[in-house]
Amino acid sequence: MSETPHLNLDRAPARTLMGPGPSNMHPRVYAALSQPVVGHMDPLYFKVMDEAQARLRTLFGTRNDLTLALPTTGMGAMEASLVNLIEPGDEVLVGKHGVFSGRMTGIAERCGGKVRELDIAWGRAVEPAQVEAELKSHPIKLVCLVHAETSTGVIQNRLPEIAKICHAHGALLLVDTVASLGGVPFHTDEWDLDAVYTGSQKCLSVPPGIAPLTFGKRAEEKLKNRKTPVQSWFFDLTLVRKYWNEERIYHHTGPVNMTYALLEGLRLVDEEGLEARWARHAHAAKALHAGLEAMGLALFVKDPALRCPTVTTVEIPAGADDVKTRKALLEQHGLEIGGGLGALKGKGWRVGLMGEGAVGNHVLLFLGALGGILNAQGVKIKAGAGLEAAGAVLNAPR
Amino acid sequence: MSETPHLNLDRAPARTLMGPGPSNMHPRVYAALSQPVVGHMDPLYFKVMDEAQARLRTLFGTRNDLTLALPTTGMGAMEASLVNLIEPGDEVLVGKHGVFSGRMTGIAERCGGKVRELDIAWGRAVEPAQVEAELKSHPIKLVCLVHAETSTGVIQNRLPEIAKICHAHGALLLVDTVASLGGVPFHTDEWDLDAVYTGSQKCLSVPPGIAPLTFGKRAEEKLKNRKTPVQSWFFDLTLVRKYWNEERIYHHTGPVNMTYALLEGLRLVDEEGLEARWARHAHAAKALHAGLEAMGLALFVKDPALRCPTVTTVEIPAGADDVKTRKALLEQHGLEIGGGLGALKGKGWRVGLMGEGAVGNHVLLFLGALGGILNAQGVKIKAGAGLEAAGAVLNAPR
Repeated sequence: MSETPHLNLDRAPARTLMGPGPSNMHPRVYAALSQPVVGHMDPLYFKVMDEAQARLRTLFGTRNDLTLALPTTGMGAMEASLVNLIEPGDEVLVGKHGVFSGRMTGIAERCGGKVRELDIAWGRAVEPAQVEAELKSHPIKLVCLVHAETSTGVIQNRLPEIAKICHAHGALLLVDTVASLGGVPFHTDEWDLDAVYTGSQKCLSVPPGIAPLTFGKRAEEKLKNRKTPVQSWFFDLTLVRKYWNEERIYHHTGPVNMTYALLEGLRLVDEEGLEARWARHAHAAKALHAGLEAMGLALFVKDPALRCPTVTTVEIPAGADDVKTRKALLEQHGLEIGGGLGALKGKGWRVGLMGEGAVGNHVLLFLGALGGILNAQGVKIKAGAGLEAAGAVLNAPR
Repeated sequence: MSETPHLNLDRAPARTLMGPGPSNMHPRVYAALSQPVVGHMDPLYFKVMDEAQARLRTLFGTRNDLTLALPTTGMGAMEASLVNLIEPGDEVLVGKHGVFSGRMTGIAERCGGKVRELDIAWGRAVEPAQVEAELKSHPIKLVCLVHAETSTGVIQNRLPEIAKICHAHGALLLVDTVASLGGVPFHTDEWDLDAVYTGSQKCLSVPPGIAPLTFGKRAEEKLKNRKTPVQSWFFDLTLVRKYWNEERIYHHTGPVNMTYALLEGLRLVDEEGLEARWARHAHAAKALHAGLEAMGLALFVKDPALRCPTVTTVEIPAGADDVKTRKALLEQHGLEIGGGLGALKGKGWRVGLMGEGAVGNHVLLFLGALGGILNAQGVKIKAGAGLEAAGAVLNAPR
């Protein structure tokens, strides 16, 4: 057998997860995950699917019939959305201002889409007027935007206006909410969005590997009127939905234990209430931002209105060693943050406050740990001032 | 919120799972599943991936570098294999003798493959001469076979000969082992197979939702020499492998807890030893088959050499009610078996003996429960004789 040294999973360290996902999980989610497995066609599992589906509708803010969770990750849900909504030759507009929006282009092209990119500066969001200009001059069928760009921490904050523009020009709007859903206000139906997908391991605090999505009426029309088959059988939502609805036609083996965990995560969301959960994320982020700025660090996203509470990108200060700092956080403090992706590699750190992890204690721990490490590296940092500023936010009346 | 009644996961029934997967899981797999989540780029998670990869090589019987597990189900692994190995216009031969081999055709066509089907009677296997005849008369690039057809219980028992024929004609051989790997003898390298995939929830007794595969040298050549991009980004193995090898390039968020469970399942396989595990599956199946035949029931697969130990299809006897029987097994005994799929719907029951569930106690419980239910339906069945015959096998020296 393998010569890999034996790894004792029972001694896996309890990390403080402040990267851009996964986030720390509630004990009830762990308990649900390890409930006895049942068959994927068991009436009990169908009840689990039904309740998860109902709660997903609440989470997405939708009444969409086509609402379900796929046995894949957030990136798989991106691909599932695109393969269903794009036919070869369709013109597609992608608002590109980070790694994940960039990935949309790559996948849309593999679907045969003719992609136009709105190339926005990283750290900025797409403006409605920019979308409108493109739609006026090109017969675009699908517009793809990322609500919270995990690679920059920008929130796309004008979705309702953009949706109106899309529909006025006969285009559908697809939105990636992998890093935002459950952590910031979101209303699929009220904002009239056509298709939305997310992941499990960020603001829902469920293990990675199950990915919810919802398709509205216009998106369903697209599925019905396709002239070509969806190039993916596995992600063909017309087939997958028949397993989720009353037909119960076997498509794939449902990821039973992961669905238990998703359901428990959604119950926790509902017990807290979406409004309270959004407020909790906003409050923790406010403390983090105040603390970082008081320490003398710069946030990458300059416009406060574009800062997503769930992922914050901090510019790495002069003199600090990117890899050593993250290694010290992990090894000395068991605390994970994310490095920069793409254009921000070596230039930014990504700090997540998501789901169970969007709490003041995580903010204080991170600021305290980071301050000590940077000071030890000789970087001039006002560590104490940062903690005081964060504490002031956390202790002020909300 | 939803009006779905609250489902108490803590009271989920402990089923005896004798359908065609998922199978019952070992307590250590449950424990691994709920170990603390860590980041998908955490050095600890990389160790878990490395050890799982090494153990997967043992399981597949291979030294293939490209050996990994995808965050998907067995059907996703089928799709991943086909999208990587097929380019538009490639001629593909599918040995079709059940639902899962039939699905290969559908997916291969969505990849742009020109599919020829070897349409074999359900209950029979593909003969080497049949493959040879096709390869002689057509420029076929890929041959697709299912090792254990979950819809019939047939084992494809002449893979080494077929592999030789494929390679003599310049074709690759892809093999589906979703229902067999870990339960019956299998040797990827010794048999010279080019690509093999499996699932987690059958003979490995790991929750559904993670799917291993391995690609050999010839399959790697195909990936390198492709003239067109793989139509799926999510399943593009050239990208995925960079997350699994020392490059550690982020592709998707690894399904952390599911990988813990996979690793623990693989450790259990290695602790038992593959030879012992195969023997255990064969022994349990022998008892099941003896018991069913002594009860007066007919096995669907007539040739004993083609009966896969892991899935047995029993013909539903005259006078028995398919749905009522399965419902009674589930409700009175907490025991799941599978109904017939496709052409066998309403005509056969599929009984799984897989992984942790390939044990004499499952055989006896099933025969006892089935005998009572059929007798109560007025079906003439020799229930006692069945139990005696199974018991004789179980108690004979192996």
